[in-house]
Amino acid sequence: MKKANKKLNAAIIIIGNEILSGRTQDVNVVNISNWLNGLGVKLDEVRVIPDVEKIIIKTINEVRKKFKYVFTTGGIGPTHDDITSKSISKAFNDKYCYHPKAYKLLENYYEKGKFNIGRKKMAKMPKNASLIYNPSSAAPGFYIKNVYCLPGVPSILKSMLGGLNNKIIGGSKILSKTLSLQTVESEISIPLEIVQKKYKELEIGSYPFFKQGKIGVSLVMRSKKIKLIKKCTSDIMKFVKKQKIKVIINK
Amino acid sequence: MKKANKKLNAAIIIIGNEILSGRTQDVNVVNISNWLNGLGVKLDEVRVIPDVEKIIIKTINEVRKKFKYVFTTGGIGPTHDDITSKSISKAFNDKYCYHPKAYKLLENYYEKGKFNIGRKKMAKMPKNASLIYNPSSAAPGFYIKNVYCLPGVPSILKSMLGGLNNKIIGGSKILSKTLSLQTVESEISIPLEIVQKKYKELEIGSYPFFKQGKIGVSLVMRSKKIKLIKKCTSDIMKFVKKQKIKVIINK
Repeated sequence: MKKANKKLNAAIIIIGNEILSGRTQDVNVVNISNWLNGLGVKLDEVRVIPDVEKIIIKTINEVRKKFKYVFTTGGIGPTHDDITSKSISKAFNDKYCYHPKAYKLLENYYEKGKFNIGRKKMAKMPKNASLIYNPSSAAPGFYIKNVYCLPGVPSILKSMLGGLNNKIIGGSKILSKTLSLQTVESEISIPLEIVQKKYKELEIGSYPFFKQGKIGVSLVMRSKKIKLIKKCTSDIMKFVKKQKIKVIINK
Repeated sequence: MKKANKKLNAAIIIIGNEILSGRTQDVNVVNISNWLNGLGVKLDEVRVIPDVEKIIIKTINEVRKKFKYVFTTGGIGPTHDDITSKSISKAFNDKYCYHPKAYKLLENYYEKGKFNIGRKKMAKMPKNASLIYNPSSAAPGFYIKNVYCLPGVPSILKSMLGGLNNKIIGGSKILSKTLSLQTVESEISIPLEIVQKKYKELEIGSYPFFKQGKIGVSLVMRSKKIKLIKKCTSDIMKFVKKQKIKVIINK
């Protein structure tokens, strides 16, 4: 892999007691990750942390040095437990204040007399932040340096990603191919390891599945190079045919 | 909160490229977290990291010092990308070798002649590890000191948690109550903050929802003390009634 590509990575920090408590099933990681794949940026770490200012500041400052892009989800709404914007301001030693553009945007969005203190809070962020447009519900996200702050509500978050496409400098798209086989992992682990050792620039994941009474293994190849994926598939198919294993999915 | 309770916390380390790549939706966090709630142990952090030995070792050694219990998921199967057991051995400076009990257990489970190298790999773990019984598919998990290693397949993982109940020393059960209101967050943020400030030992989360055309806010109270939850509910209900907000769910 070229050196330049190595740094095209990202981390997600999910800020939310509701995920840690088991109340809410996170789905933002899958959405952000698939969007990043298309931009050629590899998601390399996820952290889920509680709504605690000290922990948010510490995590942000640790993670933003390690990864090219950092995305946070959650905690930018109007209630007492929404402390992401304030914490990010502190992490960057920046003033936490009304962002003039965000304030205007929200003021215009709400009916006269309805722009109350809670709603005004959503215009507060680090002084040097830039806005991330929200086509669903007006309240913007923001970014400062390499940290992009998005809301926790999945449908709103998803609607905001497209607006970031031109902000993220990515690389070649990360491609993947899945071969689902009617076998068990332990029957193919040896030849598969040999193939993986041959293709060091390509990642092969092996995932057993049990569904609708069927047992199988999905092999997932990931690489930026379609040629490598094709060569690797052909090598896998050699032992698959030799062992007379049925291919369930090839896509 | 009593000092003793503060330490009854846990972290989960999800080891899996398939989660980071967006291919697979994690569901193990919700399952482990809800199980921990019942044992009175609070999940305080989750990390998702790739199948890279150096990163696994570094993360394990960092996290196991910070939390009372650490659970890992994934990477204990028979294929080349299953490197959790070896990495944990290295993290603990322990020998990575066949565990006699695990070896016997698997040898008995498979038909004669079917106990191949891939399957034998699942008996390899740190020399000083103890087994976690697997009622679904024989291959055991293991624990060493405060680190509990579980498989990634959700149904198998779930079936193994019960066997750990007597290994985890917890506290009072963490209780929660949900009030879903037909309102928006910004209409209740001020009185809600006043209530949260009054009940410092109780955590109130506020989560907007939009489903089936309905807009609302779920307030979730979490505490080990039922009395506090009841008092807090009554205080919330005061402003809910005053603002003539409809209660959709109260449970």
